[in-house]
Amino acid sequence: MNATPLPRAGMPAPLALVYCSHCGSDRLELRIPEGDSLSRYVCANCGTIHYQNPRVVVGCLPVWNEQVLLCRRAIEPRLGLWTLPAGFLENGESVVAGAARETLEEADARVDILDLHTLISLPQIHQVYMMFRARLLDLDFGPGPESLEVRLFHEAEIPWDEMAFRTITRTLRNFFLDRKQATTGPHISSIERRPPLPPDLRGAA
Amino acid sequence: MNATPLPRAGMPAPLALVYCSHCGSDRLELRIPEGDSLSRYVCANCGTIHYQNPRVVVGCLPVWNEQVLLCRRAIEPRLGLWTLPAGFLENGESVVAGAARETLEEADARVDILDLHTLISLPQIHQVYMMFRARLLDLDFGPGPESLEVRLFHEAEIPWDEMAFRTITRTLRNFFLDRKQATTGPHISSIERRPPLPPDLRGAA
Repeated sequence: MNATPLPRAGMPAPLALVYCSHCGSDRLELRIPEGDSLSRYVCANCGTIHYQNPRVVVGCLPVWNEQVLLCRRAIEPRLGLWTLPAGFLENGESVVAGAARETLEEADARVDILDLHTLISLPQIHQVYMMFRARLLDLDFGPGPESLEVRLFHEAEIPWDEMAFRTITRTLRNFFLDRKQATTGPHISSIERRPPLPPDLRGAA
Repeated sequence: MNATPLPRAGMPAPLALVYCSHCGSDRLELRIPEGDSLSRYVCANCGTIHYQNPRVVVGCLPVWNEQVLLCRRAIEPRLGLWTLPAGFLENGESVVAGAARETLEEADARVDILDLHTLISLPQIHQVYMMFRARLLDLDFGPGPESLEVRLFHEAEIPWDEMAFRTITRTLRNFFLDRKQATTGPHISSIERRPPLPPDLRGAA
């Protein structure tokens, strides 16, 4: 019986704040507030504690018979590479509504969301991905403003070398594996940032 | 075939910011940035866009044979009421590590996390709950600083009328129902805020 591992002691420092958004003072201190266990920006003028927390990325894996829908990115980062429709969850929406909204915005596609397929934590960039398996409802899709191209792919056609994000590659690999094995998600995992190359290899990268 | 409903047009306004945390200016405008579709606080002085997004609450449903572990809250809100160990996901940790950390902090309990049991969106307060089913590893638990009391409950003993949050009640009800039906999660849902009482009933509440 193994206990679930606890976070490492050395969590990343909060992203830099310069001024208090409540009172405008520049007397922000990075310290552990009373009763807390992590460093936060605390305003020495008005006392406001500025908490910073991970953001949620919600998206869909839209399926049409044997094919899946991918979008080619029209924006940075990873312009020109392929992805699933996904983006940041907004205040005021549920995770399912957010995933459907992103699919409409990026692929002009209407879906029926079926289940949570992949849940991936990216602790070093303070993100949590939630990708939902979805049934594409019609073929009237097309690129939204953030996509160059939207199309359906059979498994053998997936451009694995031109995927925008590791989260998306992992989601698709899990999906095709599930189909072969008759298994289902949710697949829960983390992706840690790749360690930087040693200095003597950086020029060669 | 029904399309997953899209979010309502009237999303809540962002929480009030007064000063730009980047440059300290008070010239913050609430407007839709170019290429965006939602209102954000934009600094008219330095151009910084201040995005606001939902926060993730992670927690555990620790199980010991037929019993589940609950904590009685030592802090507001809902001081004195019962809950499962849960709290805000922090920058730098995975969802699973965060759920284990909260369980250690609030109940001094070590767990092996088994699966995602409940995923509940609370769009009106900009939160997403993720509750994990977990196996309690030993009986050396006890109240952390935020708990008055920690104990194990059989289903018949659960203090349903003294639960701190609807998310927790829903998580526990799903758990006991799953056990009777031999079903599993994740159970994905939303909780909308109860509508306010009409004015002529407010005095009676």
